[in-house]
Amino acid sequence: MTTLKTWVNVPHNSDFSIYNLPFGIFSVNDDQPRAGIAIGAQIVDLVVVSELGLLAVNANYFNQSTLNKFIALGKKITNKVRLDIQQLLVIENSPLKNQPEAFVQQKDATMHLPVHIGDYTDFYSSIEHATNVGKMFRDPENALLPNWRHIPVGYHGRASSIVVSGTDIHRPMGQVKTNEMETPVFQASGRLDFELEMGFIVGKPTQLGERITVENASEHIFGLVLFNDWSARDIQKWEYVPLGPFLGKSFASSMSPWIVTLEALEPFKVQGPKQDPAVLSYLQYDGAKNYDIQLEVGMSSKSSEETIISRSNFKYMYWNMMQQLAHHTVNGCNVNVGDVMASGTISGKDESSYGSLLEISWGGKKPFKLKDGSKRTFIEDNDTITLNGFAEKEGVRVGFGEVTGTILPSKKFRI
Amino acid sequence: MTTLKTWVNVPHNSDFSIYNLPFGIFSVNDDQPRAGIAIGAQIVDLVVVSELGLLAVNANYFNQSTLNKFIALGKKITNKVRLDIQQLLVIENSPLKNQPEAFVQQKDATMHLPVHIGDYTDFYSSIEHATNVGKMFRDPENALLPNWRHIPVGYHGRASSIVVSGTDIHRPMGQVKTNEMETPVFQASGRLDFELEMGFIVGKPTQLGERITVENASEHIFGLVLFNDWSARDIQKWEYVPLGPFLGKSFASSMSPWIVTLEALEPFKVQGPKQDPAVLSYLQYDGAKNYDIQLEVGMSSKSSEETIISRSNFKYMYWNMMQQLAHHTVNGCNVNVGDVMASGTISGKDESSYGSLLEISWGGKKPFKLKDGSKRTFIEDNDTITLNGFAEKEGVRVGFGEVTGTILPSKKFRI
Repeated sequence: MTTLKTWVNVPHNSDFSIYNLPFGIFSVNDDQPRAGIAIGAQIVDLVVVSELGLLAVNANYFNQSTLNKFIALGKKITNKVRLDIQQLLVIENSPLKNQPEAFVQQKDATMHLPVHIGDYTDFYSSIEHATNVGKMFRDPENALLPNWRHIPVGYHGRASSIVVSGTDIHRPMGQVKTNEMETPVFQASGRLDFELEMGFIVGKPTQLGERITVENASEHIFGLVLFNDWSARDIQKWEYVPLGPFLGKSFASSMSPWIVTLEALEPFKVQGPKQDPAVLSYLQYDGAKNYDIQLEVGMSSKSSEETIISRSNFKYMYWNMMQQLAHHTVNGCNVNVGDVMASGTISGKDESSYGSLLEISWGGKKPFKLKDGSKRTFIEDNDTITLNGFAEKEGVRVGFGEVTGTILPSKKFRI
Repeated sequence: MTTLKTWVNVPHNSDFSIYNLPFGIFSVNDDQPRAGIAIGAQIVDLVVVSELGLLAVNANYFNQSTLNKFIALGKKITNKVRLDIQQLLVIENSPLKNQPEAFVQQKDATMHLPVHIGDYTDFYSSIEHATNVGKMFRDPENALLPNWRHIPVGYHGRASSIVVSGTDIHRPMGQVKTNEMETPVFQASGRLDFELEMGFIVGKPTQLGERITVENASEHIFGLVLFNDWSARDIQKWEYVPLGPFLGKSFASSMSPWIVTLEALEPFKVQGPKQDPAVLSYLQYDGAKNYDIQLEVGMSSKSSEETIISRSNFKYMYWNMMQQLAHHTVNGCNVNVGDVMASGTISGKDESSYGSLLEISWGGKKPFKLKDGSKRTFIEDNDTITLNGFAEKEGVRVGFGEVTGTILPSKKFRI
């Protein structure tokens, strides 16, 4: 990797190094949201930089409440903007040095959802997670379903309820029926969970009837975010057979605000797990298509400071993003700029790397402790879950910041 | 019902009577798509009527490629526009009588998707359909799953691949594994099916955390369309456990272009089937919340003229739309203007009213004949499926037109 040195003050171990430069949508005070790039603890205001005549893209593309219009320009242009900003932050005689209005402190900014999401798909691509769930709910000897090693299993999720990091979420109400109950009851979920996921943002659309091959898939992926697919396990359990998860998921999913480009993650590509049996030809791939991204889950409460409850890694994924996208479109399904496709829960091999409370507390049977000694199996009211993730190699760090959310008590409804 | 008489020539038995006046998006030649209202065999151009100063809504709301912006004005205004047009088409001294440019022949227009669809949800609300599927694939003695009479079961579908009536669809390719196969194969679907459904269009949004009650639900429903949820049964069968239908559905769904308002359907409300056991309180309702809408499915091929293969009725639905919407939002899931929620396959009690080929041919075991004597179990290449539907009472007819689509051979892909 070429060594780059920026004249901007970037804190040691910042996720937003000069090698990263992720895109996001921010606002300050009551100003209109607009596009920016994160560097250290600051944001480069792309509207200002463009208006200074320093970018090849008109400020109009950045003066938007989502990145969709900009992303739709295509990678040739979006990559150039990122590299031009990199250059401007590195060169000695940079015209940005005397432009303080081009920079905003992240602590002074409000972050927004970076894209308008057309469709949201959630995969189920961690073999460790699928195996754990299968052991708990089905047959421990045949934990994986017959299709799992042949299909990157996924389902459609609800796009409207995806929120940006920092959004509080009310505990959902819903129908629950435990094995002991004769009939279902309507109540607040008692088994509220997070799911440690990453999501990718589609950057290049297709027409209905077209398909994306594994080899071409990276052209269609703009970048990645951290993703918490909040799950109400009790609601999910009663509703999901035969048509899949619905209200157990659709009350909210949380997304990190900065989209780290696929190009920034290029140095962190690694080989994925061997796929056995061999997959069908439209899913076969060569080379390194997984990404070594370290992931961490923190849980805190009103009485307890943050406790790290899981350390996992995106590289564990059995099915990679290119396979997911090839599979998703093999029937001719079209994709649009801003579509989000999430990985599914990313669990590792042992308990310390499980990506959900369902697994960490093994279905509620193994309570664990927060730092103040209080016990948990699932999420309690006013608990906060924070996911973070970064890639690091040879002193270069490219990170995602965090996606955080606090669960508030259920809203009381007239019923 | 007040008797209304329009001075426009409306063909006998037209779906688009003076009592209907559905909204749609049309274009003529290469002009920009815009909003219109159907009357008989014509379309009232709402841009022109507004520019004549005859409507309370600015032409800008109609000069759009979708109805979202107009619908978002709210029912008070959208209802007034419909009633103002009705008035203009009825009164003797109507200012539209000498405005031929306010009318377009439907045969000269291209229809477009009437709304930008944010999220699409498909329910599974016909007890006859769910029972038939359960008999075929599970236990004939316990055909309905335990949750079915408690929950209006639904799942998230793919919004991007919803197309307007008349769009040709290529037979999807995908993974298939029959019971006889050791491993799955990649091939064109051999069990391609339609699903006779109706869909409603959300007209009033909610915020995350809000819920819609059964009593308030009709305020949030702008109107209804015919909906064909094309299904590749073989792909669906291999993929759908445990997370639900995905590629077996997402290759395309077809929608009729005219949105018939809930207000136009008001005279056709009827009592729904008794729900036993009693449903939870948030799903209980009073009065008539089903709609008596006669539905018909026609199938034709290159060699055979159209054969009516099913006659069903929307009134059979066990779960009504108000319950569906109340259930969908009971966990706080937000809805947006333009969201589509489809009913699921609408089957009646006997064979002549089944809403899918899966049921009509009983899983492929009972072939049926088209008019030319050729046999079918599922859809063959170049077959056309057309759904139509209308309500009728005391000489008043309010119809949906049709949703039609032809299945073309699979596209050949390099694999």
